[in-house]
Parts: sequence; structure tokens; C-alpha cells
Amino acid sequence: MTPPLRGIVPPILTPLSDPGTLDVAGLEKLVERLLAGGVHGIFALGTTGEGPSLSQRLRREMVAHTLRLVNGRVPVLVGITDTSLEDSVSLAKFAADAGAYSAVHAAPPYFPLSQGELWEFVRKLNAALPLPLFLYNMPGLTKVTFEMETLRRARDLPNLIGVKDSSGDMNYFHKLLGVARERPDWSVLIGPEEMTPEAVLFGAHGGINGGANLHPRLYVSLYEAAVAQNLPEIRRLHAEVMRLAGAVYTVSPHRSALICGLKCALSLLGVCQDVPADPFRPFDAAQREEMRARLKMLGLLG
Amino acid sequence: MTPPLRGIVPPILTPLSDPGTLDVAGLEKLVERLLAGGVHGIFALGTTGEGPSLSQRLRREMVAHTLRLVNGRVPVLVGITDTSLEDSVSLAKFAADAGAYSAVHAAPPYFPLSQGELWEFVRKLNAALPLPLFLYNMPGLTKVTFEMETLRRARDLPNLIGVKDSSGDMNYFHKLLGVARERPDWSVLIGPEEMTPEAVLFGAHGGINGGANLHPRLYVSLYEAAVAQNLPEIRRLHAEVMRLAGAVYTVSPHRSALICGLKCALSLLGVCQDVPADPFRPFDAAQREEMRARLKMLGLLG
Amino acid sequence: MTPPLRGIVPPILTPLSDPGTLDVAGLEKLVERLLAGGVHGIFALGTTGEGPSLSQRLRREMVAHTLRLVNGRVPVLVGITDTSLEDSVSLAKFAADAGAYSAVHAAPPYFPLSQGELWEFVRKLNAALPLPLFLYNMPGLTKVTFEMETLRRARDLPNLIGVKDSSGDMNYFHKLLGVARERPDWSVLIGPEEMTPEAVLFGAHGGINGGANLHPRLYVSLYEAAVAQNLPEIRRLHAEVMRLAGAVYTVSPHRSALICGLKCALSLLGVCQDVPADPFRPFDAAQREEMRARLKMLGLLG
Amino acid sequence: MTPPLRGIVPPILTPLSDPGTLDVAGLEKLVERLLAGGVHGIFALGTTGEGPSLSQRLRREMVAHTLRLVNGRVPVLVGITDTSLEDSVSLAKFAADAGAYSAVHAAPPYFPLSQGELWEFVRKLNAALPLPLFLYNMPGLTKVTFEMETLRRARDLPNLIGVKDSSGDMNYFHKLLGVARERPDWSVLIGPEEMTPEAVLFGAHGGINGGANLHPRLYVSLYEAAVAQNLPEIRRLHAEVMRLAGAVYTVSPHRSALICGLKCALSLLGVCQDVPADPFRPFDAAQREEMRARLKMLGLLG
Repeated sequence: MTPPLRGIVPPILTPLSDPGTLDVAGLEKLVERLLAGGVHGIFALGTTGEGPSLSQRLRREMVAHTLRLVNGRVPVLVGITDTSLEDSVSLAKFAADAGAYSAVHAAPPYFPLSQGELWEFVRKLNAALPLPLFLYNMPGLTKVTFEMETLRRARDLPNLIGVKDSSGDMNYFHKLLGVARERPDWSVLIGPEEMTPEAVLFGAHGGINGGANLHPRLYVSLYEAAVAQNLPEIRRLHAEVMRLAGAVYTVSPHRSALICGLKCALSLLGVCQDVPADPFRPFDAAQREEMRARLKMLGLLG
Repeated sequence: MTPPLRGIVPPILTPLSDPGTLDVAGLEKLVERLLAGGVHGIFALGTTGEGPSLSQRLRREMVAHTLRLVNGRVPVLVGITDTSLEDSVSLAKFAADAGAYSAVHAAPPYFPLSQGELWEFVRKLNAALPLPLFLYNMPGLTKVTFEMETLRRARDLPNLIGVKDSSGDMNYFHKLLGVARERPDWSVLIGPEEMTPEAVLFGAHGGINGGANLHPRLYVSLYEAAVAQNLPEIRRLHAEVMRLAGAVYTVSPHRSALICGLKCALSLLGVCQDVPADPFRPFDAAQREEMRARLKMLGLLG
Repeated sequence: MTPPLRGIVPPILTPLSDPGTLDVAGLEKLVERLLAGGVHGIFALGTTGEGPSLSQRLRREMVAHTLRLVNGRVPVLVGITDTSLEDSVSLAKFAADAGAYSAVHAAPPYFPLSQGELWEFVRKLNAALPLPLFLYNMPGLTKVTFEMETLRRARDLPNLIGVKDSSGDMNYFHKLLGVARERPDWSVLIGPEEMTPEAVLFGAHGGINGGANLHPRLYVSLYEAAVAQNLPEIRRLHAEVMRLAGAVYTVSPHRSALICGLKCALSLLGVCQDVPADPFRPFDAAQREEMRARLKMLGLLG
Repeated sequence: MTPPLRGIVPPILTPLSDPGTLDVAGLEKLVERLLAGGVHGIFALGTTGEGPSLSQRLRREMVAHTLRLVNGRVPVLVGITDTSLEDSVSLAKFAADAGAYSAVHAAPPYFPLSQGELWEFVRKLNAALPLPLFLYNMPGLTKVTFEMETLRRARDLPNLIGVKDSSGDMNYFHKLLGVARERPDWSVLIGPEEMTPEAVLFGAHGGINGGANLHPRLYVSLYEAAVAQNLPEIRRLHAEVMRLAGAVYTVSPHRSALICGLKCALSLLGVCQDVPADPFRPFDAAQREEMRARLKMLGLLG
């Protein structure tokens, strides 16, 4: 039995030079930044990575370059969520050939399934994959939750090795930890960075936290403090995460504020270009200046 | 100025022999059935056509075969909704080369956009397309509505030629008709078949009604009665549509009941196979027998 | 068997001189205005009447004065929706003693019930009432829909005499008309005024339309045109309703815009004071001026 | 400055002998059970206490008896949420006269307010109250959230002394703790018992946890472990809470399962009768036997 993946696994941004072209130099800088920050894995093509927004072609380029640049230093998880199962599996095969650690799939994002249908889908997906699978609970975007009854059935799938939960519902997360207890090889990771320390204190294995793109060291330190059960340190670092999130994700009032905010921030730091994938658009000049001021206030920009 | 498209434009089912293979013989029978029923157009790869569930490859096969089989007898609209704009445009180019009448795109189905972002998306999409565009309002699946402010801005796009509304909200639809009045070339079509006659009475140009796959003549007759403002006939035919919908779409309690119900029904009628695309699954034997009984009760099966 | 109530039954505003005091003079003017406009009934303490916002005391005052002022000229329906069944029944008794035609109750607005629970509730409520009952489908505010299974069971209650539907979902409304067909004494009324004509064309008995507070004659004429199946007249008057609604209900962007808009408009017309009940607040001076301009544009103010 | 209220403050059930009659003997046993369990306060007429379902009369009886029975041993908070502000304030005056510690009010539960309207409402409510106020964030039932901008404004109200959050959203809760930091007299309490320990670890003052009706000592011990930052003990007791909640709240699939489950369980323990207020109904015989089995499995019943 492989031990579960533990730690901070940033959902890496997809640096672009224009909406259809990978910013390979930016990706290299971002990968090195994350690894220098001590992250324990990298999750490519997640929600923060705008995976579903990229063309099938661009997803493959992102996978290939990420695996080449990471070069085995940490495991690379690859998001394969798509409205088409065939295209999901095809991407997973590409990722497996490139050396990915696992695939990650949310509930099918267009047609809402019943739990029975979702279970059948998970079983079929899992059987078709050439690499291990994480389920990704993201009801805010997919409209469907992986209910406990479905997760209990999914414990029978040996090739399913973990769950990422981005519901933001800690009651759900505590129940998920209970279900996962019978699969000690499962890695249970939390999405919202504001809840990573409490998740880890109660048994989670880590976090897939968007903010780690911007400040990987902070999230790694917070994870380590949680593992060490060092409560004063947890509270201090958690307050810092809350401050960062409150500043970086709120420059725009729209749902795109998180991803566009991170891309804008990283371009201000000189890491990659400020080009979101369609259908998003970069911040305008005023928002960019506001972000600059906030990064200075946070001490992230000189 | 081209006059607006009018009439019943069925969102044609995608007949499959297995989840990854087009049932070409079934498609041919279905196309002939629709044309024999008098439909005024065909909409391929819509929601009822499971467009987003098909692989990029299978979508192209469906487009090519549908256009070949229809062979210019009625206009063919092609759904290009995808989470990736690049892949949407690529499919639209394929459809244009194959002779499609227009593309149809819903709000991007993964990331919810603000109205300002949605307008920018529509503008960019429209500019990139080699054929005319219908907007497709489907908030139940995409989580986003094309609000009136956005539709008003969209009136400036000459290559945008219509709107399909599947919100089920007649107040919205009435407002949409008001906005469309200044673009007399726009075709305003309604999705839910239960509302087609009232929509047409108030100025809509027709319906994109799933049930027309099963009984095209009924929907065409109802449309014609609405155009003729023949209220007794409208009420009689509308009651028949309500009876059909109440029987065929309720064999299963899940959201998949409509599409799986239509595929099951058409396979019982010998038109095509009963194979939904992933992530759906065909009805089980008991549901199939229930459907058989209902089709007999409706007089659609001997 | 009593024939079903038919026509326009305005959900009468509750004129106030301050948030806790009835504006009796205003109420008298409003009642006379409605009756002069030809309305077929009056619904007091509905949503537009801010019924749930009024104290138990003020609700009784509104009922007593309305019945006194109407003085039998048309039937008066009384909204008794409350979070407490005992207080609902108590108000219904008061209304019955005052001569009300029927009570109107929505799904309990605090705790969401399952359909089985809702049916038990309806049965118990109905049994406890000293006067006939209308069910009021208002899921946007109560979070619960009266599903068809529940309405079918409710057909067994002789003292239940009608349903008002404010869901805005015409597919639901068409199904409701089907269920009601077996109870020819039921009155099926629609809430959203934008849909009254189509509802009546398909068999509804009338509308409980907020805008009839402002322009009763328009709504009565539209209802009469629908009964007469005069389609050109329907379309002309419906366009006028859409224009009125689009102007009067959109001065503020909030959900309160409809009720506060009507109160502001009627105060500008000199009918009653511009005092909403708590928790709403009157329009500010700029909004009031905007409303004045819009009423002039509509020709409702000289 | 009064120090903030800290600890476990159960939202006490309202024992009834029939839906309109208080079970005073049951209430006495329940109060003594809670106090013997070490609770730090009692919250009457909350959601779990079915406050909104009770008549105005019965709410007063519950307040009077609770305060008489508690007799100053712990503070008593009284829920005054109502659709009518006047009736809320009237109940608050009654509670103040009876010696209540504070009133508790959620967002108005019928008409959804904008944040600006909500702030005006809070200001007006607060000014009208003869005792201190807790805000109660319960968007699942009221449809409206107290957003941070509103809570920040509410910091200016000296007579506002705390917030109870039942959103289940820990990101919200962490932000709330941040806002509350500038009002060190505020008591920030969490509703969902599954999250009490993490809330306390990050600075909350305690929990208003329904399960404390059934097993007060467990919740008090868990709170104390959290205050002591004793992580092994927290995890042990939290697992027990999860087990209790997973057993007691899931006998029925409906939203009423929590309240009806607690009432059924406490009647099986001989504390009070199994009579929910309308619109709820008691468990049937099979559900009652299932509950008995679960209580035995939990070791709560011999």
C-alpha cells in the first residue's frame, strides 16, 4: 500500500502569453517558486489552473511542460474534469505517459447526476484510467456533491486514492474524514485555504490551496504547524493567510476575482504574464494598481 | 436582411450504438422522421443532443452525418457550447465547412461570469466565428443567465441572429421578446415545449422542443395552430403535449429522465438504439417496460 | 358547488401612515380606486400587502377596515401565512367573522417541509379553518413548492377552493391546471402579471397581480381580452403591462423594488402614503423623483 | 465592559404536551439536565427550539417558564426572530421583563433584504430593544447572510453583544472572527456542533449546539478541551459528537430530522414528550424504534 499523499499541493496557475499560448518561461519560474517554497506536490489543470477553460491541445501542453519542469521532484496531479468522459480519459492517458502521479476528476460539470448515476460514472471512469484517481468535490461549480453514500461505495475501488473537497462545508469534510478512515491509503485534501489548518488538525492530509501559488512558503509553514499541533503558530500563520486572501481575492467583486487576482499578483511579482484563459479577462489598469498597493501592504512587493 | 428562422427546430438526439460510436443508421431514420413530420430546422449537439457529453471527435461525426443526411432540406444549427472557447470555435469552423446554418452557444458552463464578463465573451466568440450565432439561455445547467442588459448590448452584433431560451421563466421570455423587437432579423425560440404556443402567440418564432424527436408532427401542428391563432386547436394540441411530456419524461425521477426517456422511447419505436452518452446510462428493464406501457397509452406504440 | 372565483384580484397594498399604523384614509382611496377599476376581488395581506411584515394586531386592523370598506361589493381573500399555525388559524377566525371570502396560506415560510409533511400540514390547516382555503405557491420566498403529488392529494379537501401560483414557472402552472381540472370549483389564479393573459388563455381563472394596485383598469381589460380570446387586444395590453412593470419595479435593484415601487407610485398619485412596513424602507428622494419621471412617461401622472 | 458570554449555550427544545401546550414538567427536567451537564447558558426559542413555529402566546409561556426554572443560574438568551418587527420587539420586552440576558434575531425570514436594508433593519431593531442583541446568521432558512460589510457597520452599536453563526461556512466564520476582534465584548458562537472545537481553537467563544439537549456533558467537555487546546481529547470527543449527530439526525431524510430526532430521543430518555410544534410531526413507530436502537448503540439508553 502506497502511503497517502500529504502536504501542500498547489493548484498551479496556467501561465499564458495569450489566451491560447502557454507562457513556458512563466511556468518554469512558477514551478521553481513553488518547489523552493517547499510544496509537496503540484496539481495541474485544476479549477485555479483554469483546466476546463483550456483547449484539449493546451491542456496537453501544460501537462507535458509541467512534468518536464518538475522532473520528478514532487508528484504531479492532473485535473481531467471534462464534460466528455472520452476526452477525460484521453487526457488521463496523456498524463500517465508523461509521468503524472494521478488524475483528478470532479462530478461531470454539465448534466447533474443522481448519486446512483454518479457512482456508476466514478466506477466507469476509474476502470478506464491508466493511473490512480482523486475525486474532486466542487458542488459550487458542478452543481453536484459526492454524498457520503457514494464515497462509501467508492472505497471499493483500489485505484481511487483520494478526495479533494472544495465545498467549504466543514461538516461535510468531517464526515468525509470518517468515511476515509477505512481507506488509510486515501489522501484527503482540502481546497479552501482558510480551512487547511483545522482540516489537518482533524486528520486531513493537506491542502490544495490556490494562494500557495503566490506565497508557497506561508502555506507550507501553516501545514507544518498544523502537523506539529503548534497552536500559537497555527493561529499566527492562519491570520496571515486570512489577510492575504482578504486582500488578493477581493479586488474584483466577481467570481473570477480569485484566479484573475492570482494571475495579476504573480505578474506584478515578475513570475508570469497576466493573461487569464477565456472566458476570463485580465484586470484593468485600476485593478492592477489596487493589487500592487495590496501586495505592498502585505509585504509581498517591495 | 435574412428573415428570422421560424418553426419547430428539434434538438435532435444523438443516436449511439455504444457511448463512443454514432448509430448512423439510427440517425438517418431519425432525420427522416423529423423531416417527414414537417420540422423547420434541426438543432444538433444541443442539451437534448448531449452535445457537451460527446468527445470532440464524436461531435464532428455527428455534425458531418447530420448535414449529409439533411442535405439542405432544412437549416441545421450546431451546438458548440464548451468550457473552452478555442474548442468551441474549432467545432464551429468544422460546422461551417459542413454547411451549418448557425452555431449555438450557452454561457460558459464551468466558471460563472458576471454580466460584463459575459458580454465580453459573447463579443469575442461572435468575432471568432465563421457562421452566425444563436445565444442559448440555459441557467439551470450553466448557472448564468443572459440578462437583458447583456442582450441589449448583443443587439450590436450583426452576426448574432437569435436567442434560444430554456430558462422556463416566461417573464424573462416576454422581456427578451421586447429586447429582440429592435432586431427584426433575430429568431427568438423557446426551449420548454410546454410553453411553445404561448411564446408564439406573443411573438416568438418557434420552439426548440425535445419532444419533437418523438412526435414531430404534433409539435409542428401546435406551432402552426399558434401561428394561426387558432385557440381551440392550440388548447387541444397543447393538452396532448402536456400528456406526452408527463408520461415520457417522468419514468425516472432524475434530471436524466428527459434525455434517457426520449432515447428509450425512440428505441421502442424502432428508430434508434437506446444508448445515452456518458455520464448517462440507459433505462433498466423495468423502466423500459414502463415506457412501453406509456407509449401504448399515448397511442404512439401499437 | 360554488363556481370558482374569476378575474383580477389585486393583492392590495397595506397603506400605512407609519410602520405600525394603518393609513385608513389611504386604504379607503385605494379600495375605491380598485373597485372603480372593475376588479373582481381583493386579496388582503398577501406578499404585496406585506402581510407577514405586519404585527398580528395590524393584520387584524387591515382585515377589519378592508372588509368594512369593501362592504360586500367583491369577495375579500385574506392572507394568513405565518410561521405559527395557531396564529394563522386565529387570524383566519378573525377574518371569517369579519366576512372574508377565503383564507390564503403559503407553505410555512421558516422550516422547509417535505411534500409528505406539507400535505399533512395542509390537511390540518384546512380542518382548523372556519372559511375556505386557497393554497399559495411562492417558492421564491418560502423555499418550498406545492408539488403536483401534494396538489393531487389536496383535491380531496372540499373546503380547499383554489390555488394561487407565484412561482413564475409556466410549466408548473400548466401542470397545475391539469390537476385542477378534476376540481371544477377550484379557482386557479396566477401571481406574476406578465403571465396573466397566457394563463387565462389556457384555462386559469384570473390573476392576483400587484400592478393592479396602480392601474386596475389595465389589468381588468387585459383579463377581459384574454377571456374574449381577442389576441390583438391581448398583445396590445400585455405590452402595456410589460412597460409598466419594467418602469415601476426597477427603480431600485433590490427585491423590495416591487413593493416599495408601488407604494411610492401610489403616494405620487395621491392615493396613500409612501410608508412600507418594516423591514422595508421608503424610496429616497432621488428614487422618488425617478419614479415620478417614469409615471409621467407611462402617462399615469400628469 | 461586560466580558463576552462563553461556553455551550444549548438551543433548548420547547417541550410540548400537544402542539399548542407547553410540557412544563418536561421543560423542568430538560433545564435541570442541561444545568447538571454544565452548560454555560440557555438559548430559548431558537431554530432548534422551534421558536418561529410557536404562537406569540406560547413563545411568552416558554420564556416565562424557562426563566423561572433557570432562576438565574445561567444567562438565558431569547430568540425573537419574527416576520414582524413589532412582534419581535414586543416579545423582547416580555423577555427583558422576565430577566433574559439578551435577545437573538436572524435576518427577517420572509422578504430577502439587501445588505443596506439589513443594516438599517439591525439599527432600528437594536434601538428598539430593551436588552442586548445577538445577530443570528442562518442563511439556509432566512435566505440572507449578514455579510462582513454589515457586521462591520454593526460594530458601532454598543448594545449589540454577539453573533451566532449557523451558516456552516467556516471561511465566513473565520472572517467573522476577524471582524469581531475590534469588539472584544462580542461573543461569537457557532451553531453547527460538528465545528465547535475548531471554532473555539480559532477564537470563538463557544457553541449553540442542538445536540447539547441530548448530551450536554459531551458538548461541555468538548468545549473545555478546546479551551485547554488538548488536541487528543478534542479529537476523541469530536468523534463522539460526529457519531451522535450521524445517528440521531439521520433517522428521517427530511430537514425536520434534526429537531424531530432530538424530541424523539429525549422522550425515549424520559425527559419530555415527543411532540413537535406544527408544521412538524412526531416520528412514526418505526422511526421511534430505529431511534431507540441508535440511542442504545450510542450508549445513551440502557
